[in-house]
Amino acid sequence: MSLLAEALRERVCRANLDLVARGLVMETFGNVSGADRDGGIFVIKASGVPYDQLTAEHMVPISIETGLPLETRFRPSSDTPTHHEIYRAFSCGGVAHTHSEYATAFAQARTPVLCMGTTHADYFRGTIPVTRPMTSEEVQTDYERNTGLVIIETFETLGLSAEDVAAALVANHGPFTWGRDASEAVERAAVLEYLARMERTRRLLDPDASPPEDYLVNKHFNRKHGKDAYYGQKRGAGRSSLT
Amino acid sequence: MSLLAEALRERVCRANLDLVARGLVMETFGNVSGADRDGGIFVIKASGVPYDQLTAEHMVPISIETGLPLETRFRPSSDTPTHHEIYRAFSCGGVAHTHSEYATAFAQARTPVLCMGTTHADYFRGTIPVTRPMTSEEVQTDYERNTGLVIIETFETLGLSAEDVAAALVANHGPFTWGRDASEAVERAAVLEYLARMERTRRLLDPDASPPEDYLVNKHFNRKHGKDAYYGQKRGAGRSSLT
Amino acid sequence: MSLLAEALRERVCRANLDLVARGLVMETFGNVSGADRDGGIFVIKASGVPYDQLTAEHMVPISIETGLPLETRFRPSSDTPTHHEIYRAFSCGGVAHTHSEYATAFAQARTPVLCMGTTHADYFRGTIPVTRPMTSEEVQTDYERNTGLVIIETFETLGLSAEDVAAALVANHGPFTWGRDASEAVERAAVLEYLARMERTRRLLDPDASPPEDYLVNKHFNRKHGKDAYYGQKRGAGRSSLT
Amino acid sequence: MSLLAEALRERVCRANLDLVARGLVMETFGNVSGADRDGGIFVIKASGVPYDQLTAEHMVPISIETGLPLETRFRPSSDTPTHHEIYRAFSCGGVAHTHSEYATAFAQARTPVLCMGTTHADYFRGTIPVTRPMTSEEVQTDYERNTGLVIIETFETLGLSAEDVAAALVANHGPFTWGRDASEAVERAAVLEYLARMERTRRLLDPDASPPEDYLVNKHFNRKHGKDAYYGQKRGAGRSSLT
Repeated sequence: MSLLAEALRERVCRANLDLVARGLVMETFGNVSGADRDGGIFVIKASGVPYDQLTAEHMVPISIETGLPLETRFRPSSDTPTHHEIYRAFSCGGVAHTHSEYATAFAQARTPVLCMGTTHADYFRGTIPVTRPMTSEEVQTDYERNTGLVIIETFETLGLSAEDVAAALVANHGPFTWGRDASEAVERAAVLEYLARMERTRRLLDPDASPPEDYLVNKHFNRKHGKDAYYGQKRGAGRSSLT
Repeated sequence: MSLLAEALRERVCRANLDLVARGLVMETFGNVSGADRDGGIFVIKASGVPYDQLTAEHMVPISIETGLPLETRFRPSSDTPTHHEIYRAFSCGGVAHTHSEYATAFAQARTPVLCMGTTHADYFRGTIPVTRPMTSEEVQTDYERNTGLVIIETFETLGLSAEDVAAALVANHGPFTWGRDASEAVERAAVLEYLARMERTRRLLDPDASPPEDYLVNKHFNRKHGKDAYYGQKRGAGRSSLT
Repeated sequence: MSLLAEALRERVCRANLDLVARGLVMETFGNVSGADRDGGIFVIKASGVPYDQLTAEHMVPISIETGLPLETRFRPSSDTPTHHEIYRAFSCGGVAHTHSEYATAFAQARTPVLCMGTTHADYFRGTIPVTRPMTSEEVQTDYERNTGLVIIETFETLGLSAEDVAAALVANHGPFTWGRDASEAVERAAVLEYLARMERTRRLLDPDASPPEDYLVNKHFNRKHGKDAYYGQKRGAGRSSLT
Repeated sequence: MSLLAEALRERVCRANLDLVARGLVMETFGNVSGADRDGGIFVIKASGVPYDQLTAEHMVPISIETGLPLETRFRPSSDTPTHHEIYRAFSCGGVAHTHSEYATAFAQARTPVLCMGTTHADYFRGTIPVTRPMTSEEVQTDYERNTGLVIIETFETLGLSAEDVAAALVANHGPFTWGRDASEAVERAAVLEYLARMERTRRLLDPDASPPEDYLVNKHFNRKHGKDAYYGQKRGAGRSSLT
């Protein structure tokens, strides 16, 4: 395996452990992957390895073209085909999946996370959608691949950009997020959980509250993302902070 | 006492302390037991010993046949007859009882924890039931034994398998869970608490949300349990992770 | 000051610090006192001392007969007259007052904490009452003493025993609890907060859920309290654990 | 830069870090400033610097008269014009802005935090208001300055004193608080978050509960603030404790 791939394994392993540090993991649910598109691979957590024993060698390399593992030492996460479909459809470099408490509760209620304020708009341009329930056929045959496909179908049906809204809730399952790399996917998983917590409270306070106007949402999303972003220091601040 | 029984005491003591580590204990509520069926005994926490002083010697051995203590150094938990009835009726090797916040609130509302998603289905095949309230006679005479019997009656009345659904809520009291050993019983107590938290939020978001279809529940339960399970590594991963 | 009084100061200081350790303190709200009835005094936290600087010397001795401080080094808590009235009316040896989040929210909603299960019944025999709002005269003249008197009036009006129900919510203010000593008063403040959390969830799940029958409440209260209590070890276990 | 300004930078840096310690920060949201009115400046957190790298040198000095930075090493927080307008309108010495979970949820529901008890009245004399939504023009041109102006407009429209109620919720955005210095602004941000948590629960328990009478609110506010305050020790206790 190349040096680049080794560095990728290290980063993706850290991103998986970061899920735990951010309180997004119950028992051993969850998995994160990260891609090296030039190398044509992504690496993903091995199946059935407890987080407290996780090391970079448990990151299994997968071909982006075929979706097949390039090593046989460890079985990759059973959710690997879901990640694979997301890499094929969306131009991202990292994918995270959790069963974090509030985002999962929204998925279980099949309730989208509405954009009700600037905290949301700083990260996602609009509602986080919920997929339709999967059919019996989709569940019984190639379930994990179909999980990826129903996310992609949701974005197509709703006309959503996967860059504007880098997250989806799979009905009666849980959240998937993506980003430029594994670390950004995990950051977005953490923000989505926080937004779900706030949105739960907002609904309790006033179920009929008006969402902010589009111009406020766009102002905040563009203040942080894209060519006219003006937060942070002139060099190197990247996406590290909103002030 | 045999070496095997000593090892059992150690494991069950650790499982009791694990209740505290997982945040399932308020004050000194809760108790865990574990069985050695070949030896014909189970051991259970002594009554009235604070968790921070708990050692393996506070695990009191009980005869599975008679339900009576085999030692007189410490009084066993007053809930011992409840555990005893569960061991007699169900083919399990460990039992846990907590007053964990959300599972207990469901028991106090006499509200079952519905299976609303794959997090639930990965551990329990369907709804966690609530017992009927106990009668005055059941409470006044042999209360703790009758607590066990009303759990078993609930499973019989509903036609539930204690392997598919290894948990029950005793009305206006709290949750009991069981498993292959004390450690698995505690793991399920922790998962049940998490499911109750999510189900509380789901009900707030949409009280009428549709549960997932049976084929999704069965897919997830079978993906992890039984002969066609395909999560984890090929050897030794056991039940340690879902990915 | 006597050696006994010094020991009392130490114990009451620890009980005050225990409020913080149990997560019942926001900013510097809250205060605990403890009595030496033979010595005719109680000691209470000084006013305006941050918890991280609190030592036994900040515990101010007060005459149970007159309610006046017996030392002038530190001003006693401004809530001292409330504690004083409680010691005069109820046969307790410790009093705690907090603004803990959920118990205070119940006080702000003027909603009693109903006894909905055995966790509650193990500590309190029945509903935790809320006082009536205080009148303008009661607030403007001798406010803190009248706070104590409105608690006592509530128990008289409802025909409650201060031993069966050792807690009250002052309307639009917060909880007071009492016990045999300062430590037990704090333990009950912690349990009350936990019960309020669960009762909040119970109300969300089913606002009309039936409470348990009296025979279940009495069974649990008596299992732990009074001459027929049978939890714990034969000597020395005291109130330390329910199993 | 003067020694006084250096000391101010240190204090404001600590106040920014205190936001994190108090659990008010999600990712890198939030910023605190503090003023030296005699020196004609305030200092504010630099934009885009993660909290774990924050030092006093990242506090950027700003002219209170012009609102312009007096140094060019670091860009000031993009919210600087909001702080500037608050310093111009209100006689305060510190300003804090967070996206803390519950206060932000109230802002997203455009729901004021009502004064329902003495915990609130000890810090704020009455309801914490929500601004009107900002217009498209206000958002598209000089957004951050207009955010400050809409806070000030809210206080003028409602006839509120910025000393009695030292906090506001910007609609669909989040809370701003102020005080005598940066540290007091942060303390009030923490208290506001706690009040929002309790008010959320109060609304769930009884949406129609009566608020306390004005005489109780004034009693508590005046017990702690103003010339007749009687909490704390005779010297030096300042605002450090309520007992």
